[in-house]
Amino acid sequence: MNDAALDVRPSAQFRHLYQPPKIAGDFAGKHIITVEQFDKADLDAVIQSAGTLRERVLRRDGEVVRLCEGRIMASLFYEASTRTDMSFQAAMRRLGGSVVFGSNGVQFSSVYKGENLADTVRAAGCYADLIALRHPAEGSSFQAAYYLDKLNERIEKPCVVVSGGDGIGEHPTQGLLDLFTIVDQKGSVDGLAITLVGDLLYGRTVHSLAKLLAMFEATGVKLCFVSPPSLKMPDTVLDFVQKHGINVHETSDLHEVLGQSDVVYWTRVQEERFARQADYEAVRDMFVMTPAVLNQCKRDVILMHPLPRKYEMGTYNDHDILDQNPRSVYFQQMENGMYVRMALLAKVMGADV
Amino acid sequence: MNDAALDVRPSAQFRHLYQPPKIAGDFAGKHIITVEQFDKADLDAVIQSAGTLRERVLRRDGEVVRLCEGRIMASLFYEASTRTDMSFQAAMRRLGGSVVFGSNGVQFSSVYKGENLADTVRAAGCYADLIALRHPAEGSSFQAAYYLDKLNERIEKPCVVVSGGDGIGEHPTQGLLDLFTIVDQKGSVDGLAITLVGDLLYGRTVHSLAKLLAMFEATGVKLCFVSPPSLKMPDTVLDFVQKHGINVHETSDLHEVLGQSDVVYWTRVQEERFARQADYEAVRDMFVMTPAVLNQCKRDVILMHPLPRKYEMGTYNDHDILDQNPRSVYFQQMENGMYVRMALLAKVMGADV
Amino acid sequence: MNDAALDVRPSAQFRHLYQPPKIAGDFAGKHIITVEQFDKADLDAVIQSAGTLRERVLRRDGEVVRLCEGRIMASLFYEASTRTDMSFQAAMRRLGGSVVFGSNGVQFSSVYKGENLADTVRAAGCYADLIALRHPAEGSSFQAAYYLDKLNERIEKPCVVVSGGDGIGEHPTQGLLDLFTIVDQKGSVDGLAITLVGDLLYGRTVHSLAKLLAMFEATGVKLCFVSPPSLKMPDTVLDFVQKHGINVHETSDLHEVLGQSDVVYWTRVQEERFARQADYEAVRDMFVMTPAVLNQCKRDVILMHPLPRKYEMGTYNDHDILDQNPRSVYFQQMENGMYVRMALLAKVMGADV
Repeated sequence: MNDAALDVRPSAQFRHLYQPPKIAGDFAGKHIITVEQFDKADLDAVIQSAGTLRERVLRRDGEVVRLCEGRIMASLFYEASTRTDMSFQAAMRRLGGSVVFGSNGVQFSSVYKGENLADTVRAAGCYADLIALRHPAEGSSFQAAYYLDKLNERIEKPCVVVSGGDGIGEHPTQGLLDLFTIVDQKGSVDGLAITLVGDLLYGRTVHSLAKLLAMFEATGVKLCFVSPPSLKMPDTVLDFVQKHGINVHETSDLHEVLGQSDVVYWTRVQEERFARQADYEAVRDMFVMTPAVLNQCKRDVILMHPLPRKYEMGTYNDHDILDQNPRSVYFQQMENGMYVRMALLAKVMGADV
Repeated sequence: MNDAALDVRPSAQFRHLYQPPKIAGDFAGKHIITVEQFDKADLDAVIQSAGTLRERVLRRDGEVVRLCEGRIMASLFYEASTRTDMSFQAAMRRLGGSVVFGSNGVQFSSVYKGENLADTVRAAGCYADLIALRHPAEGSSFQAAYYLDKLNERIEKPCVVVSGGDGIGEHPTQGLLDLFTIVDQKGSVDGLAITLVGDLLYGRTVHSLAKLLAMFEATGVKLCFVSPPSLKMPDTVLDFVQKHGINVHETSDLHEVLGQSDVVYWTRVQEERFARQADYEAVRDMFVMTPAVLNQCKRDVILMHPLPRKYEMGTYNDHDILDQNPRSVYFQQMENGMYVRMALLAKVMGADV
Repeated sequence: MNDAALDVRPSAQFRHLYQPPKIAGDFAGKHIITVEQFDKADLDAVIQSAGTLRERVLRRDGEVVRLCEGRIMASLFYEASTRTDMSFQAAMRRLGGSVVFGSNGVQFSSVYKGENLADTVRAAGCYADLIALRHPAEGSSFQAAYYLDKLNERIEKPCVVVSGGDGIGEHPTQGLLDLFTIVDQKGSVDGLAITLVGDLLYGRTVHSLAKLLAMFEATGVKLCFVSPPSLKMPDTVLDFVQKHGINVHETSDLHEVLGQSDVVYWTRVQEERFARQADYEAVRDMFVMTPAVLNQCKRDVILMHPLPRKYEMGTYNDHDILDQNPRSVYFQQMENGMYVRMALLAKVMGADV
């Protein structure tokens, strides 16, 4: 017998093998692993709760720390992600809950001792009420949910998983915080021209956001997808969006759409996605947001970015100038991530928010 | 002067140099570093408190988080151990206490700056009320207790250590959770045939459990030790158990005892323990628990395992089948680890549980 | 464009670019990045609060955990430091606040994804109320304060930074805990002969302490600086101290001053600071504190050390003997670090302490 024989089924298989429950108005005790669990009313509920929690945190409402008092979140991050990790932690803490860490264990112990994801997730499930999971393998959050359901049949204390991103698969909390930020900044999604820019083929966050915008049942929305020809939005997402009646425009030329966009969502185009260096160099300048580019946008545009950022926002000097521009909302977007995660965690823990 | 001259005495020396206090009915302010500190009444007290705390957690008794409110546990894990680490953390959190971490410091800082265990433990002792210590050197928990006693003479805020395992030495909390699980599942230890399987020579958990079963003053207990001939239970443990009047049967053939066992405690036989590959291959199939083997057990057997597991429970497919079998209680055993640690931590912190 | 182009300005530039606010009697919402922010009344306030908090912790005053309830500290340690890290964590926890961690993120994620300090600090600033920052680059805490001020103009939830040491620059909390320990042990600084020994050129802690002693407006203080000739106190610190009217004596011969010192503050002389091995060997024995050396001190001297320690306190056997000597106060000094950090954290969070 070798290590391969011991491996659990590939995580990706669990996307088909496991069907997570729809939220359908009731978050309590449910895993959160894909945006497809939500319907419009669920999205509204998250947006409203996130807004309320933000307001309560800012006025330092002392009752917020009672919402998840005594509840434990295990943070299982198989790959580091400063923002997602810290904002999950901060969300749970602000609700009065606690966090236990398996990261060191995950990095050192499990690899060393050859433990698979199914067993590590169930170990955390024995101690915690909720697992925040980040894992590089697509479908890993589905796999975690599958094995936690098995565990929950055997032990008395139930545990759910909330995905913090699984490979090129899903990143539902990022999508929700992006949606919240748009609604929060623009008042509504209705009638907006929303432009997603960058690597739309591999970009997990733009897939989730595009789907959520489609599911949000807004009227008069126009989605513009701007990418190098080799990094276009996958057909599955395109089909999903169009089936929901969204008007889509695809292009590789940012300037076709920049001046008409109400929301510009910027992401990085990575050199390593291109087979030939020359292909990358041919397009990269098209995909750098600088102060000059931002100045070509509408006066009331909002510039979003999931962060972290690198060359796609120019030099550090460009960063400093962009950061001061009131149209740049990526810091508010980042802060909103905490409030959206607070809303989700509180809801799945059964708190009344 | 060189690094060797700076080394503190070898940890193992502290097993003789330092005598931890007996519990003798009073846990408050005492280090927990060996099962030999306990007598029967102390074991009963831990078992009862663990059961009560489990019941209180499951019905979400809001007073549990007041038991260690304001108390600080430092988690000093010099080797990773997902389960022990996370369950100590979760135990302290569920009691309302806090956890501070020295792991990164331990990994990077102390090694880099050449700090010895005695000094790192006292650093933690200056900030925390309790240290959960995991260290690869036998006797290290004795050494920690020794130096904390010295520290406690000098500073005002006392600090105790609770062992999370020290090398091939002791792992008292694992032994206690195993004992709790047997009592919890079978109602009592009286009259049980308990079979410990695997590497009994180096297996820290089976040593602690065997001793605790002997100390538990149960009647009619039969202990069966099943191991390869080269990995038999050490004479010290064997003598200890027999001196307590326990009936012991040693064998290398599982099938001699499997059908009569009420409890089967499974552990891994590691290839690296064998001088010759052929010796390992000759025995390994005897030490794999599969669904077929489990089916040869008594109908009401309980199958335990300290986890993590690897080849000793066959393929992942075998895992999935074993996990569904109601006779497998290793997940409950894992969950119990948290409640037993809650009981211990609360008691040494002086809480009334 | 390459990585260099993306780098933010060197951290050291921010020492000049950014001027932190003076405390001037009001700590709430202010960064703590240099001892120069304090005046005598502010130092008195910290010392008094630290003493009060220590007393409250020791008598287990249950209201202490309400002081920072609901507040979040992000621990951003770009280099490991067991003591500073753990005591910041413990300080925030004892005040009832929470801690979120970016260390793994810092180690793995940001390096991997090439994120600069300015962006990582602002990510933490979006989630936390306070950042404890340790970074190897001089001026990094000034840089963090600069970018947090920018962030605070854009988002609603403000965040401040408290330095846990930045390279050879500042380590204000260490200086404050050293000052507190002297006042606490000796009743006052007036009339004391205080001897700082070791590497005074690169030793961050002795710089901060010397400055604080000068700012403390004590009368009749004598500072003795004992170092190898090549590692003398920098002129900037010497000038600062003398301008404040402090009597300074510099020497490379410990025995000139040892018998007259009321406080001996010991630090390590590192071999790697010497160009030639022979130069190091010529002086090193002069800079080893042993029981015999301590016996040459005044009966009521206090021996301090920032810890960790290595050869500069002799062998482990020497350590054990020194540790038992009532004149050694470095463990109390370490414990005091937590109370001083509690005082600072509570004050910048606006708690009434």
